Amino acid sequence: MGAGSQKIINDPVYGFITIDSPLILELIRHPFFQRLRRIQQMGFAHLVYPGAVHTRLHHALGAYHLMGNALNTLKTKGIEISESESLGARAAILLHDAGHSPFSHSLENKLIDIQHETVSLQIMQQLNKELDGQLTTAINIFTDRYPKRFLHQLVSGQLDVDRMDYLNRDSFFTGVSEGVIGYDRILHMLTVHHGELMVQEKGIYSIEKFLVARRLMYWQVYLHKTVVSAESMLVKIIQRAKERIAFGEHLYSGSSALDYFLSHSPKDPLEYLELFGLLDDYDVMGALKLWMNHEDKVLSILSSMLINRRLLKVRLQAEPFDEKMLEFHRAHAMRTLNLNAGEAAYFVFNGEHANTTYNPEDEKINILFKDNSIRDISQVDNALISRSLATAVKKFYICYVA
Amino acid sequence: MGAGSQKIINDPVYGFITIDSPLILELIRHPFFQRLRRIQQMGFAHLVYPGAVHTRLHHALGAYHLMGNALNTLKTKGIEISESESLGARAAILLHDAGHSPFSHSLENKLIDIQHETVSLQIMQQLNKELDGQLTTAINIFTDRYPKRFLHQLVSGQLDVDRMDYLNRDSFFTGVSEGVIGYDRILHMLTVHHGELMVQEKGIYSIEKFLVARRLMYWQVYLHKTVVSAESMLVKIIQRAKERIAFGEHLYSGSSALDYFLSHSPKDPLEYLELFGLLDDYDVMGALKLWMNHEDKVLSILSSMLINRRLLKVRLQAEPFDEKMLEFHRAHAMRTLNLNAGEAAYFVFNGEHANTTYNPEDEKINILFKDNSIRDISQVDNALISRSLATAVKKFYICYVA
Amino acid sequence: MGAGSQKIINDPVYGFITIDSPLILELIRHPFFQRLRRIQQMGFAHLVYPGAVHTRLHHALGAYHLMGNALNTLKTKGIEISESESLGARAAILLHDAGHSPFSHSLENKLIDIQHETVSLQIMQQLNKELDGQLTTAINIFTDRYPKRFLHQLVSGQLDVDRMDYLNRDSFFTGVSEGVIGYDRILHMLTVHHGELMVQEKGIYSIEKFLVARRLMYWQVYLHKTVVSAESMLVKIIQRAKERIAFGEHLYSGSSALDYFLSHSPKDPLEYLELFGLLDDYDVMGALKLWMNHEDKVLSILSSMLINRRLLKVRLQAEPFDEKMLEFHRAHAMRTLNLNAGEAAYFVFNGEHANTTYNPEDEKINILFKDNSIRDISQVDNALISRSLATAVKKFYICYVA
Amino acid sequence: MGAGSQKIINDPVYGFITIDSPLILELIRHPFFQRLRRIQQMGFAHLVYPGAVHTRLHHALGAYHLMGNALNTLKTKGIEISESESLGARAAILLHDAGHSPFSHSLENKLIDIQHETVSLQIMQQLNKELDGQLTTAINIFTDRYPKRFLHQLVSGQLDVDRMDYLNRDSFFTGVSEGVIGYDRILHMLTVHHGELMVQEKGIYSIEKFLVARRLMYWQVYLHKTVVSAESMLVKIIQRAKERIAFGEHLYSGSSALDYFLSHSPKDPLEYLELFGLLDDYDVMGALKLWMNHEDKVLSILSSMLINRRLLKVRLQAEPFDEKMLEFHRAHAMRTLNLNAGEAAYFVFNGEHANTTYNPEDEKINILFKDNSIRDISQVDNALISRSLATAVKKFYICYVA
Repeated sequence: MGAGSQKIINDPVYGFITIDSPLILELIRHPFFQRLRRIQQMGFAHLVYPGAVHTRLHHALGAYHLMGNALNTLKTKGIEISESESLGARAAILLHDAGHSPFSHSLENKLIDIQHETVSLQIMQQLNKELDGQLTTAINIFTDRYPKRFLHQLVSGQLDVDRMDYLNRDSFFTGVSEGVIGYDRILHMLTVHHGELMVQEKGIYSIEKFLVARRLMYWQVYLHKTVVSAESMLVKIIQRAKERIAFGEHLYSGSSALDYFLSHSPKDPLEYLELFGLLDDYDVMGALKLWMNHEDKVLSILSSMLINRRLLKVRLQAEPFDEKMLEFHRAHAMRTLNLNAGEAAYFVFNGEHANTTYNPEDEKINILFKDNSIRDISQVDNALISRSLATAVKKFYICYVA
Repeated sequence: MGAGSQKIINDPVYGFITIDSPLILELIRHPFFQRLRRIQQMGFAHLVYPGAVHTRLHHALGAYHLMGNALNTLKTKGIEISESESLGARAAILLHDAGHSPFSHSLENKLIDIQHETVSLQIMQQLNKELDGQLTTAINIFTDRYPKRFLHQLVSGQLDVDRMDYLNRDSFFTGVSEGVIGYDRILHMLTVHHGELMVQEKGIYSIEKFLVARRLMYWQVYLHKTVVSAESMLVKIIQRAKERIAFGEHLYSGSSALDYFLSHSPKDPLEYLELFGLLDDYDVMGALKLWMNHEDKVLSILSSMLINRRLLKVRLQAEPFDEKMLEFHRAHAMRTLNLNAGEAAYFVFNGEHANTTYNPEDEKINILFKDNSIRDISQVDNALISRSLATAVKKFYICYVA
Repeated sequence: MGAGSQKIINDPVYGFITIDSPLILELIRHPFFQRLRRIQQMGFAHLVYPGAVHTRLHHALGAYHLMGNALNTLKTKGIEISESESLGARAAILLHDAGHSPFSHSLENKLIDIQHETVSLQIMQQLNKELDGQLTTAINIFTDRYPKRFLHQLVSGQLDVDRMDYLNRDSFFTGVSEGVIGYDRILHMLTVHHGELMVQEKGIYSIEKFLVARRLMYWQVYLHKTVVSAESMLVKIIQRAKERIAFGEHLYSGSSALDYFLSHSPKDPLEYLELFGLLDDYDVMGALKLWMNHEDKVLSILSSMLINRRLLKVRLQAEPFDEKMLEFHRAHAMRTLNLNAGEAAYFVFNGEHANTTYNPEDEKINILFKDNSIRDISQVDNALISRSLATAVKKFYICYVA
Repeated sequence: MGAGSQKIINDPVYGFITIDSPLILELIRHPFFQRLRRIQQMGFAHLVYPGAVHTRLHHALGAYHLMGNALNTLKTKGIEISESESLGARAAILLHDAGHSPFSHSLENKLIDIQHETVSLQIMQQLNKELDGQLTTAINIFTDRYPKRFLHQLVSGQLDVDRMDYLNRDSFFTGVSEGVIGYDRILHMLTVHHGELMVQEKGIYSIEKFLVARRLMYWQVYLHKTVVSAESMLVKIIQRAKERIAFGEHLYSGSSALDYFLSHSPKDPLEYLELFGLLDDYDVMGALKLWMNHEDKVLSILSSMLINRRLLKVRLQAEPFDEKMLEFHRAHAMRTLNLNAGEAAYFVFNGEHANTTYNPEDEKINILFKDNSIRDISQVDNALISRSLATAVKKFYICYVA
């Protein structure tokens, strides 16, 4: 960023991101936002896609940029958006992910048993106090209590700028060109009808493409079997650490923030928010590096494996795995690694992942036709996104020792 | 191209294209190939997408480049491909479009009533004589008479390098980022099983994405309503010229090659191939510019409109248009442009376009699973490409005077 | 372009170009502007870089887009620019190249002995009459008679948006990645001081890079020896045709517009502007195709060679070529092609090209330092662009028959 | 990476990187190589360019990829390169940066007083033992004791694939498009003459462009003043920690590897290599986060500032800073932060950075002309890279408290 009140930030995805509001600048400079520099957007996906090491901070800036573009387009089409609404929507998207735990989704609800959106809201509320209420509109938009619903839908909905940015960005940094979406075209096709965000008829194919790109990114990248293995191993390590501590063991992580969250399940933000502000990927990786030499075999073996990218084998299939297969692999792990049955369960386990391409039961993507009729994207003529894609696809996995 | 026997050609799509075979160099230097410089790949699509002025020559070089990559990948996987087979497949793809008429698909079967593939074959046969049989393998591959069928499938099939290149290239030059396909990934996923081209299991999502990108390019670009209008106008102009000539009028185009094809319907390549080698976009555009001042109103008005991009209005819909609407618009055109009924029919007309996303009744895209089972892409688990997409989508259009 | 008063145009270089002014739309729709579709931006450069087939129309739209960005940046920095000034500057850049002859610079002053900028001005003046004076500000900016000089400098100066667009665009379509410039960064670094366009200190390296990229594009692309050969051949053909006509021969080109310019040297725009509006690459290529069979050997051989890309050999060097070498090659050409001495001069000739990387004697590129001091880019500390680069580099070429 | 012996790795910079040698695969899987995942390529540059978070591992893979391309090009030109030489060169480049300390160049010689190349060599030697001598050729190439010197020059020289990859990659991830180089063209222009790596005449402009891009990246990115501030702060923190420990204080970093290097200056690789293999960015960032609450003011304030991106102010100029200015700022820092004079020296300090665009006194970039003459790039006709650029440019900086 340069000097002065207007800043431009180089972004390989969009070229330049311009920051011209003092409030936005203040939010960016706040430690709660700077913390997002230390949280990777895609967890352990870089073990498969080595370029995928971009941060939550970068994503938040990108989503902020798209929000500005979206609001400008809507204004050009005659939709009324005041300066304070625009600022509110941009502040809301900037902070929408501030509540993410280390490694983003990998540890969602595992380290701290609170949804990240809830923590994001708590952070906004605390910042709102510090900033004498300047975030009130942002908070109302974020929590969908603001009258112009389309502003909330841009922050969080089927076509929000969050998804658009993460698809663009994750596709860019992984090099998976197939995840490319026509975000620029989609933004130009957005409109508002009866207060709701909609897409003009001409945008149908771009929307279909967007949903297909998302589907592809889920199965090919986010839920790539190697990523599933690494992230499961991380979850198992954290789970083991929590259990040992719950059993009264003096287990330290080298980070007081992480120590706190491993041993507490706080509910009141007043209690934990300050420590949360210090908790990031570095605490977790530091702990893993420490535990590589821990006497607990589960901790030391899993940590060493994850640090050195010696991952558990993993298989993926459309049907659940047989209990016998689990037993077979557990016996094998017990022998190979000299583990007891309890320990082996951390090395051999199964699970499932689900993803829905498009579920019109949730918030719909509505297409506004020239005759002012409205149809859901799965209901347009010759829809690619048929009803059959509304059902969540489940994939079952098993992790085991080679 | 540089000097020496190896040439590198800058290509904004792939970086560099390397030509290292004397035969390929000789084909490229032949007037039949150089003619493709003078034929735009996308006809009048540049009236909507101003960047889309790339040529058939460029596409042919790109497809040649992808063929080399595809063959290398297959060899790495242990598929046997001899040097002469490789050369044959590369020569075949280089020449696969040599038989295109001016403005490519716009005038397909309109100016010359022979499929462009047939003319391509005739050109290959003539070149084969000039080159003492060096193209025999290429011709056998092109006509699917070569034992290793997968070579033909790479030239012409659901997953041929022709489609891959034109999607890449047309997407690049139009700026329609949504047409981007993961061609590099698809090429890496190709394999051969029982002599047929197949795709490894890991490539399923890339193939789905490829089909969706193609679908999008069809409706958003190739069959964009403005493009449909311009190309229909061109067809009407050529049709009118042929009819006037058939009625005995002395109508000249300024090009002896075009004059010949406007007044003859030859079947025998010996008769027309030489003149065909001189026929390109420049002849047709030259004729239109000449006819802007022709006394025939149909020719002069349509030519002026097309040259100056004052196109006929066009509407697209899922149902056929009512005959009454045609009558209404014809009456309007007669009044506005002072035409008789026969003339008005060149300004007001309807038609239809059809496109199938994926039709497994044609050649299938087969997925080879790890257990050696084979399933069609529309039959894999949770297929995006469902049976419902096998039906051709029809769109009906009407063109009329504003 | 879509319907309605705001249009977006896909551009592979910048994504989308937005047109939101009725005047600009009207200019774009005018036949004088649509004519630019039929003139390639880079003449015969596509014979070396097959992607380089983009048009003057595309370049004009791109420069228009950059002008909008530049003006917005300056406004953000507090520079006053009224709505009518903004419209004037954008109209001026849109039309700045309207006066180009076919094949752009290749035939500059050869077909019509008037600078293309003069013809552009004449076109603007004629359009201004049609548009009741709406282009008056644009014309004043174009001719540097508008008080705010920086507006003219954006249209035509060392850092104008014309150069920025053509470097971006030519680099994009040729695939010569080294021509890439940081246009976005340069635009952000522009400022106005004492009414003159300047660059902020932070932009020094980007400006150096811009000058180096331009230098590279000149020698590697625009003056590539194969391009020099092809364009010289075209000039020789036109020259021969003019001479034959001047000698009283009835030589026709198949285009009445081209016939006119081959046989007249008009000075008064009233006389020639209408025919100029019909003159484009298609006329010239049509003539060449016609002349392939002309009885004049010079015309027929050179035209055939150029159409089929059998180009004259060319050598480039830093010193002028010896007259003896010319004589040697002329004798060779006379023998090989059975020509007389006069004819051979069209096949064997020499010439020179010059390019200056940066000449501070012309309009300077001024850097505005934080302390408000101003220094020319060649005078900053550790300047890359030293005085030695102010001298024009000359390269001498000879074309001859192999 | 997929399964099987051939792996393809997605790289957003080059598309796909193919690994087809078992030795290379084994090296990649080794913890010494995997460690590079945990070291950012560009230190704290991401504080200015948020995308610049790519890792040394990614760079090493990229350089490996370019090495393969370079060797293939040379082979095509008839240069003899055996399979084992090819493998050696590729292994050498893969491991060339294995000896980097955390935060790459930021802490070079600060944490461990040994050049990173020396440590890289020690690591190669240790791996060579583990691999029964399979790295002997690689080591000979790396240390320039292999007869075919050009192999060493590709690993480490003015035109090595190391530089080419880091310019490509750093430009890509920062979004500084001006850093783009024509690596593909340069690679195609490489040749070998009398055993030395040279560039063909046609590549002159690309080489000039390469040197200018490097110059730009240095001043605009690597030595950007904000980056200089952050990296200086890190150096000061490490220096303070080492001093406190040297004074006998019990200061811990939370990492036993880092603790070791803070308190030892080992020379013998046998002593430190194992711990070095565990030392990465995570140890350093973990220490900083721990020290944010340390009682030592220097450690706690500097660590807090760096973690929260509240950086020291920095000024850059061409002349050294006056001692009085240092004194002035130190007095200010003492007052503002309540420090003593010794502590203030960690907050207010000066330094210098130097960079040479091209120094022919070092290894030259030699251009091989068609007549087999050789000239240094600064000696070609009309050279951009003049003698004046051979002098190192120095920039002086001062860091201070706002």
